[in-house]
Amino acid sequence: VLRPPAGQELVVTVDTLIENVHFPVHTDAGSIGHKALAVNLSDLAAMGAQPAWVLLALTVPEPDEKWLQEFARGFFELASQYNVQLVGGDTTRGSLSVTVQAMGFVPVGGALGRGGARAGDTLYVTGSVGDAGLGLRRPSGLPRDQLDFLTARLNRPSPRIDEGLRLRDIASSAIDVSDGLTADLGHVLAASAVGAEIESEALPLCGAVKNYVQQTSDWSLPLQAGDDYELLFTVPPARMELLQRRFADSATSVTPIGMIVANPGLLVRTGSNERLFLQGTGYDHFGR
Amino acid sequence: VLRPPAGQELVVTVDTLIENVHFPVHTDAGSIGHKALAVNLSDLAAMGAQPAWVLLALTVPEPDEKWLQEFARGFFELASQYNVQLVGGDTTRGSLSVTVQAMGFVPVGGALGRGGARAGDTLYVTGSVGDAGLGLRRPSGLPRDQLDFLTARLNRPSPRIDEGLRLRDIASSAIDVSDGLTADLGHVLAASAVGAEIESEALPLCGAVKNYVQQTSDWSLPLQAGDDYELLFTVPPARMELLQRRFADSATSVTPIGMIVANPGLLVRTGSNERLFLQGTGYDHFGR
Repeated sequence: VLRPPAGQELVVTVDTLIENVHFPVHTDAGSIGHKALAVNLSDLAAMGAQPAWVLLALTVPEPDEKWLQEFARGFFELASQYNVQLVGGDTTRGSLSVTVQAMGFVPVGGALGRGGARAGDTLYVTGSVGDAGLGLRRPSGLPRDQLDFLTARLNRPSPRIDEGLRLRDIASSAIDVSDGLTADLGHVLAASAVGAEIESEALPLCGAVKNYVQQTSDWSLPLQAGDDYELLFTVPPARMELLQRRFADSATSVTPIGMIVANPGLLVRTGSNERLFLQGTGYDHFGR
Repeated sequence: VLRPPAGQELVVTVDTLIENVHFPVHTDAGSIGHKALAVNLSDLAAMGAQPAWVLLALTVPEPDEKWLQEFARGFFELASQYNVQLVGGDTTRGSLSVTVQAMGFVPVGGALGRGGARAGDTLYVTGSVGDAGLGLRRPSGLPRDQLDFLTARLNRPSPRIDEGLRLRDIASSAIDVSDGLTADLGHVLAASAVGAEIESEALPLCGAVKNYVQQTSDWSLPLQAGDDYELLFTVPPARMELLQRRFADSATSVTPIGMIVANPGLLVRTGSNERLFLQGTGYDHFGR
């Protein structure tokens, strides 16, 4: 039994992680606990919500005390970091599967959505993209510190809660990058009935991803790989200065990567090449 | 984004159904859709809550359009019966598993709980018990109409929402019978720090279960089989008359089956036999 604060709206989200779909077999239990919570908090972040409560439905093949302890540690370390309370749950036996349902609050009418992007808005992304995708591929020859960074980005993503709160009253739309930048942007474009143009060269990349793209010319990694859980958002011209001020003391960068345009579709420029992406070109759990 | 009504508290619950644990393999998709929602609404009913919203996290081995249509039909028929809205969800690929998270409302401070049973309270149960358990066993030689009734009780349980609302301000404690009568009563006794005495002969049984018990003397069926989703509740002496009035026009019966006592433990009398049940003697997903 929970008491929602007065004058606030409730924001709810649910996400399931399945072994071998959302994380590789033999991923450590602590990472699974962390990530199951993180992906749900990321959904709240994209709505500009302050997280409050979560429910956990855990299905495991058998009760393994050590595994459960590690899982709980990963889960609760992240929960306490954001002052999130576990308020209920269910445990069942079956194939490994974790469903988390998260609840948070926004001032009435203040939630960020996907439908507010307008032609002329600038498109931004927090942090860097392609890290989790490269972490999943584990290319050989990477220095240990870079590999550790990429693995952490894959297994222990940081939900951009603080960043989402800063975007309240600034972003005209927002979404988190879970299925891939082009796929998630596609959701925003469809909901807002607009198009977008992206400059590949403007994408914020970490050193390892930058090297990978330079060596392979494979831009699909930062454009289409998912699981980065960065925020992708649009800002009207009149609020770009406020955005800079609001993020001046933030540890997380916000990078302009393109523009919203009136024509539907997504155009990606890479140097002198142009490639037209249709909507829904990212990760599809049934499509691969 | 949801707006909770003023002056109400939010009640949340989550339950997962796994193939081969919570329903037999080859259970029809409509029944799975119905039951996944019903068991969660039953949790809300036991708290005296008015259901409002649900989230659905569905994991299926592959997208089978016919299966999904049947599943959706079972789910939404029940949802519309109780005016419940599906407000979000997630679909993933993996072993068949359904997690539903339900939200409802109670007036501030008005939720029914497990901790309020007191010595001298009368113990009641709605409807009848043992039906789902017998439906799972599918004994041979049953008339077709009885078998259909038992199967419906197993696959399409009716959440006792209306009954839970009638119990507000009357019941001192309540729980739904999901794991079995003695196990679920054990949760109430533990939370309330009391004991109970049950008269087996007082248990409300349908014709098929009554015949089964007479022929086998196996009282474990009505006492320990789960999945009936009836409400088990306690009523102080001063409110028993109000209970009768409140249920006078209800299609669902409420039957006194025993008493709450000060001594911890659960004593079950069957004729001249007495059997002491400890707490937690019902269904345990990891114990069998």
